[in-house]
Amino acid sequence: MLEPLEPLIHALARLPGIGRRTAERIALRLARDRSRSMARELTAALQGLETNIICCSRCGAITTTAADPCALCTDPRRVTDLLCVVEDPSDIETIERSGAFRGRYHALMGKLSPMRGEGSRHLGVENLRRRIEEEGFTEVILALNTDVESDATAAFLREILAPLDVKITRLATGLPAGSGIAYSDPVTLSAALRGRRPM
Amino acid sequence: MLEPLEPLIHALARLPGIGRRTAERIALRLARDRSRSMARELTAALQGLETNIICCSRCGAITTTAADPCALCTDPRRVTDLLCVVEDPSDIETIERSGAFRGRYHALMGKLSPMRGEGSRHLGVENLRRRIEEEGFTEVILALNTDVESDATAAFLREILAPLDVKITRLATGLPAGSGIAYSDPVTLSAALRGRRPM
Repeated sequence: MLEPLEPLIHALARLPGIGRRTAERIALRLARDRSRSMARELTAALQGLETNIICCSRCGAITTTAADPCALCTDPRRVTDLLCVVEDPSDIETIERSGAFRGRYHALMGKLSPMRGEGSRHLGVENLRRRIEEEGFTEVILALNTDVESDATAAFLREILAPLDVKITRLATGLPAGSGIAYSDPVTLSAALRGRRPM
Repeated sequence: MLEPLEPLIHALARLPGIGRRTAERIALRLARDRSRSMARELTAALQGLETNIICCSRCGAITTTAADPCALCTDPRRVTDLLCVVEDPSDIETIERSGAFRGRYHALMGKLSPMRGEGSRHLGVENLRRRIEEEGFTEVILALNTDVESDATAAFLREILAPLDVKITRLATGLPAGSGIAYSDPVTLSAALRGRRPM
């Protein structure tokens, strides 16, 4: 009975966080909905994505074709000498939600991943370097993740950007707020110890 | 940054098993994929759904416009005197996977749900009654769920179908296979006790 739904199940299972079983459940629900209202709303939204939504040509954040460069790049109330480098546009959303950063952003759209054959070329390092020179940032914060590939990407960027007259920093690694030593893993704990601060 | 993605997030969050956060994550991923390959595959699959997929006009199972009535209704190797009544077409898929039933199906497309204002009218009981009379089933198995609304639906169907010359049964309620008494809830346990069988 699922065979005619295979193309839909396959398309759904490609989405992040959706496994085969969830994809089957969604496909069945879409199929049994005789009004097709769910499927039609989704189709219309995807067409809106196709025609309206782009990544900002300057920083990579999600924006509309009508607002490129995006609001984060053009907002005059934002700090203009701090640049926060992230791996993915969704990280910009997460940091914005925290309210803890008011500067500019730059999304790399990936990280060094030799296992997946992704070298430095797709990171658009030239764009990043040009932005740092032209926009006059004084500090570049590498807000990358804390896995091995992100560590390699951070080390690579530090090297590439070293000749520029800019301070390069990276987010602190340590215990998550509201957590405890009992729940920490050894790698986090040793990073927290190495990064201990006077108080 | 999420604002332009709202229509897509809304459409995704309507799908079963997808909460707001997952919908946001999916929308961001679709938006940052510059090739649009994920979005396009999904759009094409949804269009295939729109043009090809229907619920079988006889039993309600998911099928294609080219195969109506569906293969389950027309397969001559299946037992023709047993009818399995389910709430939803996806239940047919689940039962077929078990391999434990080889008769015909009938999907009610819902259940009695006074809280949601869903009475008996949308269950298509007339169709069910006509099928039982015309196709000559000797037993109707109510393969409904075990919540309060499904219990009410089963009681309602038993009453409606009582005048017909057909045996009406319902799936056993009891301990799940591979589980234990220690993990059972009181309602399941008392149902298992009431349904105890000589061995």
